[in-house]
Amino acid sequence: MRIGVLTSGGDCPGLNAVIRSVVHRAVVDHGDEVIGFRDGWKGLLDCDYLKLDLDAVAGILARGGTILGSSRVQPSHLRDGVARAKEHVEELGLDAIIPIGGEGTLKAARLMSDSGLPVVGVPKTIDNDIAVTDVTFGFDTAVGVATEALDRLKTTAESHQRVLVVEVMGRHTGWIALHSGMAAGAHAIVVPERPFDIDELTTKVAERFSAGKRFAIVVAAEGAKPKAGSMDFDEGGKDIYGHERFAGIARQLSIELEQRLGKEARPVILGHVQRGGTPTAYDRVLATRFGWHAVEAVHRGEFGHMTALRGTDIVMVPLADAVETLKTVPSERYAEAECVL
Amino acid sequence: MRIGVLTSGGDCPGLNAVIRSVVHRAVVDHGDEVIGFRDGWKGLLDCDYLKLDLDAVAGILARGGTILGSSRVQPSHLRDGVARAKEHVEELGLDAIIPIGGEGTLKAARLMSDSGLPVVGVPKTIDNDIAVTDVTFGFDTAVGVATEALDRLKTTAESHQRVLVVEVMGRHTGWIALHSGMAAGAHAIVVPERPFDIDELTTKVAERFSAGKRFAIVVAAEGAKPKAGSMDFDEGGKDIYGHERFAGIARQLSIELEQRLGKEARPVILGHVQRGGTPTAYDRVLATRFGWHAVEAVHRGEFGHMTALRGTDIVMVPLADAVETLKTVPSERYAEAECVL
Amino acid sequence: MRIGVLTSGGDCPGLNAVIRSVVHRAVVDHGDEVIGFRDGWKGLLDCDYLKLDLDAVAGILARGGTILGSSRVQPSHLRDGVARAKEHVEELGLDAIIPIGGEGTLKAARLMSDSGLPVVGVPKTIDNDIAVTDVTFGFDTAVGVATEALDRLKTTAESHQRVLVVEVMGRHTGWIALHSGMAAGAHAIVVPERPFDIDELTTKVAERFSAGKRFAIVVAAEGAKPKAGSMDFDEGGKDIYGHERFAGIARQLSIELEQRLGKEARPVILGHVQRGGTPTAYDRVLATRFGWHAVEAVHRGEFGHMTALRGTDIVMVPLADAVETLKTVPSERYAEAECVL
Amino acid sequence: MRIGVLTSGGDCPGLNAVIRSVVHRAVVDHGDEVIGFRDGWKGLLDCDYLKLDLDAVAGILARGGTILGSSRVQPSHLRDGVARAKEHVEELGLDAIIPIGGEGTLKAARLMSDSGLPVVGVPKTIDNDIAVTDVTFGFDTAVGVATEALDRLKTTAESHQRVLVVEVMGRHTGWIALHSGMAAGAHAIVVPERPFDIDELTTKVAERFSAGKRFAIVVAAEGAKPKAGSMDFDEGGKDIYGHERFAGIARQLSIELEQRLGKEARPVILGHVQRGGTPTAYDRVLATRFGWHAVEAVHRGEFGHMTALRGTDIVMVPLADAVETLKTVPSERYAEAECVL
Repeated sequence: MRIGVLTSGGDCPGLNAVIRSVVHRAVVDHGDEVIGFRDGWKGLLDCDYLKLDLDAVAGILARGGTILGSSRVQPSHLRDGVARAKEHVEELGLDAIIPIGGEGTLKAARLMSDSGLPVVGVPKTIDNDIAVTDVTFGFDTAVGVATEALDRLKTTAESHQRVLVVEVMGRHTGWIALHSGMAAGAHAIVVPERPFDIDELTTKVAERFSAGKRFAIVVAAEGAKPKAGSMDFDEGGKDIYGHERFAGIARQLSIELEQRLGKEARPVILGHVQRGGTPTAYDRVLATRFGWHAVEAVHRGEFGHMTALRGTDIVMVPLADAVETLKTVPSERYAEAECVL
Repeated sequence: MRIGVLTSGGDCPGLNAVIRSVVHRAVVDHGDEVIGFRDGWKGLLDCDYLKLDLDAVAGILARGGTILGSSRVQPSHLRDGVARAKEHVEELGLDAIIPIGGEGTLKAARLMSDSGLPVVGVPKTIDNDIAVTDVTFGFDTAVGVATEALDRLKTTAESHQRVLVVEVMGRHTGWIALHSGMAAGAHAIVVPERPFDIDELTTKVAERFSAGKRFAIVVAAEGAKPKAGSMDFDEGGKDIYGHERFAGIARQLSIELEQRLGKEARPVILGHVQRGGTPTAYDRVLATRFGWHAVEAVHRGEFGHMTALRGTDIVMVPLADAVETLKTVPSERYAEAECVL
Repeated sequence: MRIGVLTSGGDCPGLNAVIRSVVHRAVVDHGDEVIGFRDGWKGLLDCDYLKLDLDAVAGILARGGTILGSSRVQPSHLRDGVARAKEHVEELGLDAIIPIGGEGTLKAARLMSDSGLPVVGVPKTIDNDIAVTDVTFGFDTAVGVATEALDRLKTTAESHQRVLVVEVMGRHTGWIALHSGMAAGAHAIVVPERPFDIDELTTKVAERFSAGKRFAIVVAAEGAKPKAGSMDFDEGGKDIYGHERFAGIARQLSIELEQRLGKEARPVILGHVQRGGTPTAYDRVLATRFGWHAVEAVHRGEFGHMTALRGTDIVMVPLADAVETLKTVPSERYAEAECVL
Repeated sequence: MRIGVLTSGGDCPGLNAVIRSVVHRAVVDHGDEVIGFRDGWKGLLDCDYLKLDLDAVAGILARGGTILGSSRVQPSHLRDGVARAKEHVEELGLDAIIPIGGEGTLKAARLMSDSGLPVVGVPKTIDNDIAVTDVTFGFDTAVGVATEALDRLKTTAESHQRVLVVEVMGRHTGWIALHSGMAAGAHAIVVPERPFDIDELTTKVAERFSAGKRFAIVVAAEGAKPKAGSMDFDEGGKDIYGHERFAGIARQLSIELEQRLGKEARPVILGHVQRGGTPTAYDRVLATRFGWHAVEAVHRGEFGHMTALRGTDIVMVPLADAVETLKTVPSERYAEAECVL
């Protein structure tokens, strides 16, 4: 068989581990040929690819990024490109395409699949917000990086007797905030799923200081926002430089808390550091299993599906289901963390 | 309510996170009182305990070990102690006991429960071999430590052009070997569940060298052994110092491979470093959730059960089921790793 | 003897290691008594202290922050407090005070010493800008944290085909920028000591893209700034929220580079995470040695001095020398990094 | 100019950073050509080499091992090969050779230099035992790895109420033992420089238990040994498998301490994990500076010398001095650690 692989969307620890696993399973065990398209869908549309043999994937398992490059392509551009993609698949004699990507990529994968291309998807997002899989690779690494940062910030907050508002990734869902906040023992967590009441948050932090503690850590998912009307909030507006989203939840919340509490409060924005670099062992294993099962699905002809984790098993689910709904943090999970507002 | 907690058995990253979570949930949210028995069941039998309030558990979430201490108690000793345990529970006015421990502890928990004590268990083992839960806390940390060591050993093996046989924990099951081996890209993995054929293993490594590679990493669970008769093997015998198990799989296998391959081979025994120290974010979250749900089960009166992870949910399962069978690595998981013999 | 210890100024990994070392050396080896003043000089002025015995310092060696707390005190406030400090030292029967702190603290230490108090200082700054010592503890940890972040950011920058401008600590000196930039292989480094030419910087990054590379990492010390007139630059002005220094070098530089290069550029501000948490082994050893030698200096009566590293030796230097001049990055060090502008 | 580089001896974190730095400085800044000999001196003798341009060294800064490979060559073999080496240097038109290696390599470098070859050495050893330089790269990484392991082992030792005897690298000197032991707060350290008295060691550990502590960590350099006659000791003898040095200090000492103390004691042998993998920021900076200065020395014609760190400066010292004496731990350093026997 001949299989084409591509990675699309933002950086995510574990991409290389999937690529390597696909090549190992396909080439070594099945005697397949594997090619990799450069820069995501763009490579497929431009017929820009390289051969992926064992040497090409040697030593990449633990490396962040993607040896194939990535890009974001406009949906409209992709729709227009379906015919071209089919031509290239035919020209190259491909029996299957394995796109590895997030929500946008999986939607594109579905589009390609619906148009008759033999597609098996592999979901990827550090945000963990794809509903049909228990977990996606990249999430554990992101949570680990955020937790390590929070561990460090605690001693600094304490020494400086401050409130630190730490912004972690999660525009639409609070998974990273919830897990890193729980793991590091944050004192309050705010998430996009549940607009917070600034009075409640202030009270929660104030009570901590009243009890004699000298610092507090508030974890804020980047998409978290206050209940409408509860405080002034500039939602993704432009800053004085004309750049979007520089205002951000951490900065606005730290200013508000400082004024309300009369304590120094500072924002810390972890940013891109959460989505790059070497994956955790957990993510490497999950990514490797996804790659392996994607190849098996190809060989079974199970197209139009993607890999998913259910409990300890990897299963195949229809691409159509994958992108229906976002997996948000269910409210029963808030209770376990004790500190989600 | 009044709840007694204890930790029993070997060290496991996440024990303190469970203790902290039990105290936070019980004291803060339910207004319970919590006491901790010192050194596992021994503390219960000797009525040796300390009060656990918020201050007692401050700052322990990320710390390895257990603030309560631990010990291993003989089963017979425990059986004889049931009456004493019941007396102490009555004297102390305890409404529930939450023992946190591995197979032995859960068996003891069942014994206590069967004798009428109100017990809710929390499973603990770095080996991940408890059948009724998808994962146990401690496992992710152990795999992470082993993987990081394997990452480092690869460059050394390559520079020195050697075979390294790396022994990881797992006396009865190969979970740590499988996951760390997959995560680090080991070239062969041997596990207790599947006695290996030394000829096959030698061939596998030899082929690697024939293909121009200059080193190989073999991961061996400490309980792995060769097929009967396939090579001389001293199973847990005593060494020249009269100490048991010093022979070990890594040492014997490295010697055998060196002779068969005519390449330098060296054993590396990771040892205790896998079971101590700060837990990963994953283990802290799982441990915290176990603690929280154990308290909820106490309040629902769901005694004779223990916490378990199923998919993304924490559920309660009967203690009776917990210790029936060991969770071994299923054979379909070997295939995914490509290199399990 | 009776010795008082205090920590003052911002958080710095290794403070606890110094405290522990002072106590171990003084109490165990010399039979001294040690007390610790709470929250820096404030504790001395308010006579707020705790006894430091072996138990008080158990387990703190690897912990970030300071068990004594810290604070920043106004110089004028300190000058007014000298008499009070002397009274308290007399009342408490102290034979020596060991203040651990940065430039401000050492100036205060000198003031106290000049007024006749028996002071032995221990220098502390993550910025590494104290001239009389080769290195200060905390610096290695800060560089390590920044380097690890840069390692991660590289794969993300590459996947996203972006320029990342990463702001690290260093208001007056570029030591952290230089070392983390060298360690991580940054493509350009800008430091406060040498206002950069934005044209040169743009050319340097542009050449990299011309050579076929798809990303670039620019490390900027927070105090770096462009040559006067070379680009619009808001030096520490207030932002739209009335907060100072939110503009910052990374944000302004990323906007400028994006416009000039026509490539996406993004700022990443590492912030407080660089100054907290567990110290590296290097910093623990240095901090421990500083503590040990401070006690020895006390016993030799070498007051008015502070500990310093010279090569591999710890020596005592006059406090008067310590704060004369800032240790800036010498120009010959720029050459070694190849990429300092 | 044309420069040949080679790496020789055991693995050491930072080797790739030196190679990269040599190439960057020579190729980019001086317009030199650089070639790399494969597998150390062997590559020079066999004229086996590859071209080293910027692409060849892209991405290797943070990677362990050496892209050039390494080997150990017999001194006699080298002596016989000098003529051949000279021929190859002439054939290849090399203006300089930069060998990177430990004691043996530097001796060979001196031999080559004395025979008239233009050699500039770069010292390398994780053991830190080269006298003319304050520190060698690789040492900081080795100490960091050992310290992290010791941090983890402490909680396990405490939970299990055991003595752990942890063997770290250092056949002839105790530098790694001293620094990692200090950094992790070991309770006793034994080093090769100072044969220990087993009675004193036992007393030291026993006193700890008497004081109520429940565990102890003893760090032993692999070359440490008891004072003659103070306990049975098998110095590097063969074990029952006919393999050398399997007995080892950690195993023998743990058995002895267990018998004398009546407490469980266990050996942990950290092994190769200390000498591989990604270097710390400290080692990357030092290695990069060594590479840069080696190229500068070549351009100044300062042959027969090697790079060395003195304080914060890199200086050139004669190869003749480099290998005269081993840098052992001076006795005043023992005092600072409080626990060296």
